[in-house]
Amino acid sequence: MNKQTLINCYQQIKPFVHRTPVLTSHLINDIVGADLFFKCENFQKMGAFKMRGATNAIIQLNKEQKSKGVVTHSSGNFAQALSLAAKSLGIKAYIVMPNSAPQVKVDAVIGYGGVVTHCESTLEARENAASQISQKSGATFIHPSNDLDVIIGNSTACLELLEDVADLDYIFTPVGGGGLIAGTALAAHYFGKNCKVIGGEPFEADDAYRSLISGKIETNKTANTIADGLRTQLGDINFPIIQKHVERIIRVQEHEIIDAMRLIYERLKIVIEPSSAVALAAVLKEKEQFKNKKIGVILSGGNIDLSKLPF
Amino acid sequence: MNKQTLINCYQQIKPFVHRTPVLTSHLINDIVGADLFFKCENFQKMGAFKMRGATNAIIQLNKEQKSKGVVTHSSGNFAQALSLAAKSLGIKAYIVMPNSAPQVKVDAVIGYGGVVTHCESTLEARENAASQISQKSGATFIHPSNDLDVIIGNSTACLELLEDVADLDYIFTPVGGGGLIAGTALAAHYFGKNCKVIGGEPFEADDAYRSLISGKIETNKTANTIADGLRTQLGDINFPIIQKHVERIIRVQEHEIIDAMRLIYERLKIVIEPSSAVALAAVLKEKEQFKNKKIGVILSGGNIDLSKLPF
Repeated sequence: MNKQTLINCYQQIKPFVHRTPVLTSHLINDIVGADLFFKCENFQKMGAFKMRGATNAIIQLNKEQKSKGVVTHSSGNFAQALSLAAKSLGIKAYIVMPNSAPQVKVDAVIGYGGVVTHCESTLEARENAASQISQKSGATFIHPSNDLDVIIGNSTACLELLEDVADLDYIFTPVGGGGLIAGTALAAHYFGKNCKVIGGEPFEADDAYRSLISGKIETNKTANTIADGLRTQLGDINFPIIQKHVERIIRVQEHEIIDAMRLIYERLKIVIEPSSAVALAAVLKEKEQFKNKKIGVILSGGNIDLSKLPF
Repeated sequence: MNKQTLINCYQQIKPFVHRTPVLTSHLINDIVGADLFFKCENFQKMGAFKMRGATNAIIQLNKEQKSKGVVTHSSGNFAQALSLAAKSLGIKAYIVMPNSAPQVKVDAVIGYGGVVTHCESTLEARENAASQISQKSGATFIHPSNDLDVIIGNSTACLELLEDVADLDYIFTPVGGGGLIAGTALAAHYFGKNCKVIGGEPFEADDAYRSLISGKIETNKTANTIADGLRTQLGDINFPIIQKHVERIIRVQEHEIIDAMRLIYERLKIVIEPSSAVALAAVLKEKEQFKNKKIGVILSGGNIDLSKLPF
């Protein structure tokens, strides 16, 4: 993989994704003491950056693979992303969803044309169900975050951001499964001008923070965070990229996530999901370190149950 | 006043206001059966279209008037708008606010440099306080909606929208004091291609609807609507413009306002105040009438207490 791989990916997925806007707020800049540029993936198709990775993963399949479809297990944004990307590209998507998944998410997947299979809520049950579907149908399994083509697809949000604001000193992303920050770090490496990538991660699910310290993939015993998209684990494909290209990870408390989320609703006037707020919470947490810098912040998505807002 | 008046106004206020984006949603289009274009004044400076009218009203003052400042009475967006516009143009703004105004709004006005005077909550007390300030300081009184320069300033949101989407069949706005719909109707008249303007108004404060039928300015005995920006009355300057240039007004129920508001949060992923949702609620109410049309919807503002969302 090299710079050209990312450029090729961007050209290929372009017709199927939105180029999302970059927003700014004088007031948030004043609070931080730096210039912040928010890349609004909440405005992406189906409401999250995951559309980019899902689209690229499907495009990179060969003709025979495409004819047999794709399969994943997810109760979150990747289920919707893979369903919609598959629909856009005219192939079949099988989605394994735990019985515990909210009906609204199941309906969204079905709305995008995904074929849903329900299973128990354990990771083992999900993996078994996906594996069975794959064996039976020949569908290719696509992991939501630990897949190189997904990571490269995700990199295009940062690529666009650097096209709009070329001289960013830092880019912050939330860290969950690691697919967004790994892609962002690749794009910052190839297209930034000494642009450092920093992750924001909840204390309640800080596997990536601990993994960077120990040098091996650590797990979360619990993941009791409002940032529901970040309850997942790093994988063996994205972790080496993160080790090589991510500057560091800043952990944040739950109340800091909620405060950052509220600031974005009140000042940017946009709807984001809690996971998206973790990146700004990380900037705010150590704002003294970033005085007068130019900082990109990737807002990962906007899919939230509005009846469960924390304010 | 003619077409050139609006063009001149736009050129003059341009440096002091944002050109706001126009957003679309496939899903909302599918629901309505038409193509909708949302003009996002929630992203305007201080969070509402009122910034446009306030800025123009100040710009049109002569040098001596400017030296003595401006005064208004408002507990809502116009208080903030006049304060910020005055600050941008280097003049003084006196704002009369009722004792009942939330502290957060008072703080916002003070934050923008407005000089706040508190008074009782009645209209009479407000008008008296504003009148006294005007006499004492020589400040020019600017009415939030019943002022021709305010109306012309407000027209620039529609002017921009028609620059972006020239062939709109309809433009919907909420109707409160009448300053937004009057300005919109002027811009649609001068710059649209047979573009009709329709107002959305809550049943709970339907003075404009009744005024158009009776041919004289009607009042609201109560105004018990969630759309707090629309609890105000038409005035003698905007009413004749509305009579001449507005097609009609569609009234909506409170639950329809809330449903439209939720649709905008969920699908456009943006934060709006309840008054903004009234325009979409009106489109939805009579959607059969607007099949396959191109419809502009002006989202008037995004200043809302997030702890009081109706969902």
